[in-house]
Amino acid sequence: MSHEQHKELIQSLHECAVACNHCYDACLKEEDIKMMAECIRLDRECADICSYLEHALSRNTPFVSELASVCAKICEACGNECKKHDHEHCQKCAEACFKCAEACKNVA
Amino acid sequence: MSHEQHKELIQSLHECAVACNHCYDACLKEEDIKMMAECIRLDRECADICSYLEHALSRNTPFVSELASVCAKICEACGNECKKHDHEHCQKCAEACFKCAEACKNVA
Amino acid sequence: MSHEQHKELIQSLHECAVACNHCYDACLKEEDIKMMAECIRLDRECADICSYLEHALSRNTPFVSELASVCAKICEACGNECKKHDHEHCQKCAEACFKCAEACKNVA
Amino acid sequence: MSHEQHKELIQSLHECAVACNHCYDACLKEEDIKMMAECIRLDRECADICSYLEHALSRNTPFVSELASVCAKICEACGNECKKHDHEHCQKCAEACFKCAEACKNVA
Repeated sequence: MSHEQHKELIQSLHECAVACNHCYDACLKEEDIKMMAECIRLDRECADICSYLEHALSRNTPFVSELASVCAKICEACGNECKKHDHEHCQKCAEACFKCAEACKNVA
Repeated sequence: MSHEQHKELIQSLHECAVACNHCYDACLKEEDIKMMAECIRLDRECADICSYLEHALSRNTPFVSELASVCAKICEACGNECKKHDHEHCQKCAEACFKCAEACKNVA
Repeated sequence: MSHEQHKELIQSLHECAVACNHCYDACLKEEDIKMMAECIRLDRECADICSYLEHALSRNTPFVSELASVCAKICEACGNECKKHDHEHCQKCAEACFKCAEACKNVA
Repeated sequence: MSHEQHKELIQSLHECAVACNHCYDACLKEEDIKMMAECIRLDRECADICSYLEHALSRNTPFVSELASVCAKICEACGNECKKHDHEHCQKCAEACFKCAEACKNVA
């Protein structure tokens, strides 16, 4: 049963999507929003692909490795951007992104 | 912080989406698939809207009550269809749907 | 055939989603991004729901009126924000949003 | 401007998503639904990724080639399944899938 098999990955994707969406929301409220533009953009990209893959895994998609490989790449790009910023939401998001990227690579 | 405030609802939506997607996958593998056509259709509708709302809540959407109200309605429709079928995946899905519908109504 | 029946609405949703996503991208590149924060947020909300409904209509969702009613509301909110800004991408986006809101209301 | 640059691809993705969703809906109504199970599953996979990529291109995603490469693969898998079936909706869907796969490969 795919969604059992991928239980941990589904959880990492869920946590990463939530962290990215929270970081996106928090960035939009920051005073220094100009500095956060790339972070806002990548937060959305990353939240969207994590949510997509979480959803796809739970319906037993036949395209696990292809999708996980793209997702890993997007998680890393988002984590690399987020870790540049000192805001707590960015640091937490970077952590969730790197953890999720690793989990994706394991099935890619 | 919206995603903290809605933590329980986000969890219910996540569990409902996973249950619906699993039921969808399992229905597609059933011998009596003809009987499951409406279940397959509603599983997808319900998984998609739950995943959407989970995602929207975690980015602090300004449209919580409108989206939760539609989601509650779709969860109920899916739960009502699933509970007609004896398959374990359908019974579990119905339970997740009704629980999620209640959680949605609380914020709608 | 639902996707034939709703052909014009599907087209309006498609155009609105593209306009909102383009406006989102362009806002993220503006010098005065601080002023555009709410526009960025609503562009994403509106693009996401339009894309969702377009997709749902083309698969003959049983929840046309409920979804179209939420979508109309989000399109209006996004259109109202966008029309405050003089950027061409905002003005074009506002136009697409109001046109789409009307099309949604016709089926809601 | 990304959405201008990718105008034709966005159109192919849109048409493919609509064709897949229509085929999915029609398959669920077929008498011989048992034979259509794989077609239903792949129609959803393909509609979802095409809709995702259409959306991502229109917001100027930095991950065009990675996403287009996965999308091409899913379009081909769906086209190959659909072309096995004589139903008009399957034949039309196969055609849209192969056309979209080609368009994706051009940017992958």
